[in-house]
Amino acid sequence: MIEGYVHGYHARENERLQDQAGALVELLHHDTSYPPGSTVLEAGCGVGAQTVTLARRSPGARFTSIDVSAPSLAAARRRTDAMGIANVRFRQADVFALPFAPESYDHVFVCFVLEHLSRPVEALAILHELLRPGGTMTVIEGDHGSTCFHPDSGAAHLAIRCQVELQRRAGGNALIGRQLYPLMIAAGLDAVHVSPRMVYVDASRPDLVDGVTRKTFTAMIEGVRDAAIAAGLSDPAAFDAGIRDLYRTMEPDGVFCYTFFKGVGEKRRPA
Amino acid sequence: MIEGYVHGYHARENERLQDQAGALVELLHHDTSYPPGSTVLEAGCGVGAQTVTLARRSPGARFTSIDVSAPSLAAARRRTDAMGIANVRFRQADVFALPFAPESYDHVFVCFVLEHLSRPVEALAILHELLRPGGTMTVIEGDHGSTCFHPDSGAAHLAIRCQVELQRRAGGNALIGRQLYPLMIAAGLDAVHVSPRMVYVDASRPDLVDGVTRKTFTAMIEGVRDAAIAAGLSDPAAFDAGIRDLYRTMEPDGVFCYTFFKGVGEKRRPA
Repeated sequence: MIEGYVHGYHARENERLQDQAGALVELLHHDTSYPPGSTVLEAGCGVGAQTVTLARRSPGARFTSIDVSAPSLAAARRRTDAMGIANVRFRQADVFALPFAPESYDHVFVCFVLEHLSRPVEALAILHELLRPGGTMTVIEGDHGSTCFHPDSGAAHLAIRCQVELQRRAGGNALIGRQLYPLMIAAGLDAVHVSPRMVYVDASRPDLVDGVTRKTFTAMIEGVRDAAIAAGLSDPAAFDAGIRDLYRTMEPDGVFCYTFFKGVGEKRRPA
Repeated sequence: MIEGYVHGYHARENERLQDQAGALVELLHHDTSYPPGSTVLEAGCGVGAQTVTLARRSPGARFTSIDVSAPSLAAARRRTDAMGIANVRFRQADVFALPFAPESYDHVFVCFVLEHLSRPVEALAILHELLRPGGTMTVIEGDHGSTCFHPDSGAAHLAIRCQVELQRRAGGNALIGRQLYPLMIAAGLDAVHVSPRMVYVDASRPDLVDGVTRKTFTAMIEGVRDAAIAAGLSDPAAFDAGIRDLYRTMEPDGVFCYTFFKGVGEKRRPA
């Protein structure tokens, strides 16, 4: 499912994804819950960062969480086991070759997955097939082009663009958040509603300065330093200046903004 | 108060500001209301686009709305008169030479004004002086750097940058929204809380496509065409390509996002 996953699979990346999930849970998930007895397919669960939130918020729903990576699934399973979560089964699968029958799920949930796919509409169309009529699909994606900060910095924007370009070369799209509406419509979903979720960070929220600006966003950009330099997209001095300017936004007079987009659509019932 | 007001003062601009106010009222103002009997200073009311909303939402409060432009004030007065609004008095005044005593207002409201000032912290500090201890100041500003759309377009970003540059040369700052927190802190305000207000527009909301993307944002950028070309910031072909790409975002698969920032702070009470 993940084609050339730009973030890599190492331990520090797992930590980053957990920090991200912690700080952003309310913003992204407060309005997602599924009724008791309903079946939910989570496509691309990774290390389970979203799975634990989903499963706890809807204790009566039954989740099937799939991912293409066996080590990620093992990490996700360890995490849900450690938390005593019993309403999730994990399964290794590729979204383009799914072992499920048409119309076999009440709901589908996809978070931070489309950004890594070269054929996002095709993936959504396949998942749409698995939905029962009247069921819902929820899609959440970030958009690096929404990044906005103070003090502004051309060097920081260039470092961010390295990440966007590497992700593009790996077949993905780090600017996909803003496109959720047309993508979901193109995949056949009905009654699509997209809402932006901006995480706004200033010095009055030190938890977000640390959890979002430092440990999530800046850590992610720092993580592509060597790849960006090796690919000739930047040089050490220029890249490091950009990272320094991202740290500058964490000072008492700094501000950092990033926007996620959440789309919910329905599978049309037969007329 | 307005130094080289980049938008101009003609009739089409008044219309644009009224469209803007109509479509964005809920997003920006739903959480602003003042108790009966309280006194509120609206600094930089312009043609009264925000004044009518403020006054109607807080019918028991008494508003003093000032602006440096007599024609704008006349337009604002005609508008409130036509709507039977009786709790606003208008006064021509410059924020840097205000005819009011210190601590004479319970609340201050400033909307789309700081972006036009070369000394925004000084203006806020002067307004802060006019507040009674425990009173609040509300500041709302847009940020053109927050603009994000699909399909993305370098030409459209360049046209937007012309507007930003012209406003900068006129002494203003079209990227000021993200800075509200540090500006309000620097002006001496306490307990400052800033919240982003993103207007997200896709084809499921044709009222916003028309009211925000077309009549507010794109009209504003189109409005600086001649000035941008005269200043050598663009040429007709390049500028018009940018405008065409902004119109492209109004198609059924297009998306447009713009973020306003709203800050509320308090005047500290003596210890």
